[in-house]
Amino acid sequence: MSARYRAVIHVDEDSREKLMAALRNAYNLLDSVGEKNAEVAFVFNVRGPLTILRGSLDDYTREQINELLSMGVKFFVCSISLRALGVKKEDLIDGVEVVDSGIKRIVELEREGYAYIKP
Amino acid sequence: MSARYRAVIHVDEDSREKLMAALRNAYNLLDSVGEKNAEVAFVFNVRGPLTILRGSLDDYTREQINELLSMGVKFFVCSISLRALGVKKEDLIDGVEVVDSGIKRIVELEREGYAYIKP
Amino acid sequence: MSARYRAVIHVDEDSREKLMAALRNAYNLLDSVGEKNAEVAFVFNVRGPLTILRGSLDDYTREQINELLSMGVKFFVCSISLRALGVKKEDLIDGVEVVDSGIKRIVELEREGYAYIKP
Repeated sequence: MSARYRAVIHVDEDSREKLMAALRNAYNLLDSVGEKNAEVAFVFNVRGPLTILRGSLDDYTREQINELLSMGVKFFVCSISLRALGVKKEDLIDGVEVVDSGIKRIVELEREGYAYIKP
Repeated sequence: MSARYRAVIHVDEDSREKLMAALRNAYNLLDSVGEKNAEVAFVFNVRGPLTILRGSLDDYTREQINELLSMGVKFFVCSISLRALGVKKEDLIDGVEVVDSGIKRIVELEREGYAYIKP
Repeated sequence: MSARYRAVIHVDEDSREKLMAALRNAYNLLDSVGEKNAEVAFVFNVRGPLTILRGSLDDYTREQINELLSMGVKFFVCSISLRALGVKKEDLIDGVEVVDSGIKRIVELEREGYAYIKP
């Protein structure tokens, strides 16, 4: 059975502020409804993958992401965008999942009842 | 019975331009389909609540908001964001409703068939 | 029968970068799932119509748009926004369709199962 609260959060800009807002949204949802009642997925495409480069994240943000990963949040990254940006999976932080098309994944998640959120 | 046209409009930036676009979207929807056929809700979170501080709004914008309120439009504000911003409910314009979590409210509204709009 | 992958892409800023991201999203979706399995619509409102003025587009972007049009992608433009911007249909590129209200069209498309995407 699927969780009552499902959200897909779309990150397509190279903006630390947007990333922070995205992470906060995920955290607040999980916190307010309880981990068991929520399924949250991020989709990074266009320039969004640049916000989660292994070398660019401060400790605080990395910790936040690790906490979200440990709560079962998914971090999907678009392979088409990675190619266009010249970024390899190894350049990204641990725990992310590369998908063939970010936009396709968003459409699939919305179809499965995930509420779309764009910070 | 629920109205045929339902929209949730998300405001998470401290930007007068985004607020104006959001209000215009709401007004245009109500105007084009008729008040009785539409249910519109705003959700303000992250830095969005800063756009509706009591002291910061010009007369024109305040009038627009009052008109939307009188047409039944809901203005939901996230309590978590208010705390983070150091803003109290009394600092906000009249007519808004503080909810425990803005993101939770958005997910609930989308689940109820509200179309998500992000200006 | 409706296509399995349906997306409505919202463009409301006068930003070439956002337009490019929007076009790329559409193209990537069509490319990854196949033309027959996707229905994609753009809705331009608020300041979005300024990105598709006849005189302002470079050859590359115009070609991209023509290719999307030839694949059946719809380009809807809000008549209320056109009036507010002082722009006429003749000022826009060929192939677009003017609708009475952009926001109304977005709500209708989401209700029909189109996944909302905001670049």
